[in-house]
Amino acid sequence: MKFMTFAVGGTASWGLVDGADVVDLGGLATDLKTAIATGRLAAAATAAAGAPRHPIASVTFLPVVPNPDKILCVGLNYEMHRKETGRTEVENPTIFARYANSQTGHLADIVRPKVSSDLDYEGELVVVIGKAGRYISRADAYAHVAGYSLYNDGSIRDFQRHTHQFIPGKNFPDTGAFGPWLVTPDEFGALGPQRLQTRVNGAVVQDALLEQMIFDVPRIIEYCSSFTRLEPGDVIATGTPGGVGAKRTPPLWLKPGDTVEVECDGIGILRNGIRDEAL
Amino acid sequence: MKFMTFAVGGTASWGLVDGADVVDLGGLATDLKTAIATGRLAAAATAAAGAPRHPIASVTFLPVVPNPDKILCVGLNYEMHRKETGRTEVENPTIFARYANSQTGHLADIVRPKVSSDLDYEGELVVVIGKAGRYISRADAYAHVAGYSLYNDGSIRDFQRHTHQFIPGKNFPDTGAFGPWLVTPDEFGALGPQRLQTRVNGAVVQDALLEQMIFDVPRIIEYCSSFTRLEPGDVIATGTPGGVGAKRTPPLWLKPGDTVEVECDGIGILRNGIRDEAL
Repeated sequence: MKFMTFAVGGTASWGLVDGADVVDLGGLATDLKTAIATGRLAAAATAAAGAPRHPIASVTFLPVVPNPDKILCVGLNYEMHRKETGRTEVENPTIFARYANSQTGHLADIVRPKVSSDLDYEGELVVVIGKAGRYISRADAYAHVAGYSLYNDGSIRDFQRHTHQFIPGKNFPDTGAFGPWLVTPDEFGALGPQRLQTRVNGAVVQDALLEQMIFDVPRIIEYCSSFTRLEPGDVIATGTPGGVGAKRTPPLWLKPGDTVEVECDGIGILRNGIRDEAL
Repeated sequence: MKFMTFAVGGTASWGLVDGADVVDLGGLATDLKTAIATGRLAAAATAAAGAPRHPIASVTFLPVVPNPDKILCVGLNYEMHRKETGRTEVENPTIFARYANSQTGHLADIVRPKVSSDLDYEGELVVVIGKAGRYISRADAYAHVAGYSLYNDGSIRDFQRHTHQFIPGKNFPDTGAFGPWLVTPDEFGALGPQRLQTRVNGAVVQDALLEQMIFDVPRIIEYCSSFTRLEPGDVIATGTPGGVGAKRTPPLWLKPGDTVEVECDGIGILRNGIRDEAL
């Protein structure tokens, strides 16, 4: 199954993707995070029978989980990206954080802020946590996953490099695109052979297989849950492949009018335009 | 005025400190963050007249803002601490993040996790945001402050050093002590001469004046609001003075049975015991 969060007539809701429609499940739970936390996703197919439907083309996509308690981001998790950034090998995943108010939805514009022109893309697979846990073992990790989605971890590189900590460059409003929907693990299948690709105006700029992650999803969940209690709806962006704009010669910065697509087999395409912040 | 968040009879509420009592203002707003966001703090004195009261000694302190949208932490903001960590000077504040579920209250135990013995203290002044804003100027910064409080930014140093990003070491459950209360700016007065001190079992381990911050509060607010929209209830921990346990010879790690106090003139004392995580 695929679940999405959307707005229709100015009201936010969530629902089950059914072909060209989304079945509005706002009556089943307030939002997707609550539906996950209260175990209502399993009831979605039954509840869908009598629920209102909207053509997907008529709704506004919102971040798949607009209100996560935590967004954990893994840095440097593909070898080509680690090498292009000149970072040494490490024994544990590199973790930084996003705040929820930096997110935006599929088909919305990512915003280049007025204080920087160094806007970069980072296509990533996202894991959404389904079941809370601390000290989760690798063997148990997949039992804590609600599903998978895509992220464009839009980065303001000069702010990211102001100091050794990444937070400023990773938290500008409307830079974290999250969509288009959540794909449940039964539908997605085992992680590994799926291709993750980022395209700017149609040109491929990042291209990897999920099996090329340095730290795989079970290891990431094991590590994150060793220092924090994971909660339903928590978002883990699993890192970006090589090919970011900042490390090209000359750098490839995103500019107004560009279109960025992040695509992964089994999920679909997360597509965003770029616009300048209103002055 | 002083405001605190507490639990009584298992129910969370917030209120106005009045001598040895707290006046329960749960009828005025759901929680302190909501009261700040909806501008109800100004009505607190009037509302207090008919509200229930509890002896402070009978309630459980909770984090002053248990549910902030964001916790922004400034690293390396006192010269002695910057030098003891061997970090170079930078032009902008170093910012890392805590998640809200790492917090605990005044008089609660800070928890040493079973996976590490490198538990360290960091006494800090906290700014709580009162009015939302983006691109806030230094001149306007204080108009966005709801008040001041104290933080013990309890740090698991080996996890903090797993990679160059601090998040894992700064987010263990029950390590971020936040209290005892929020002091409004009119009561606190101008920042500068107040002494900020941390004591372990009564011995002074950190001792500085607020005017010794490298980046002062207006500059921190200006910088943070350049990359994120600050919201009412957002928490900014403004950095710790020199003298952390990790940089002593031998290191001074916190152990079960220890008591840590963070004190600041005009606010009071944030006191926490240390205990081991239950196995």
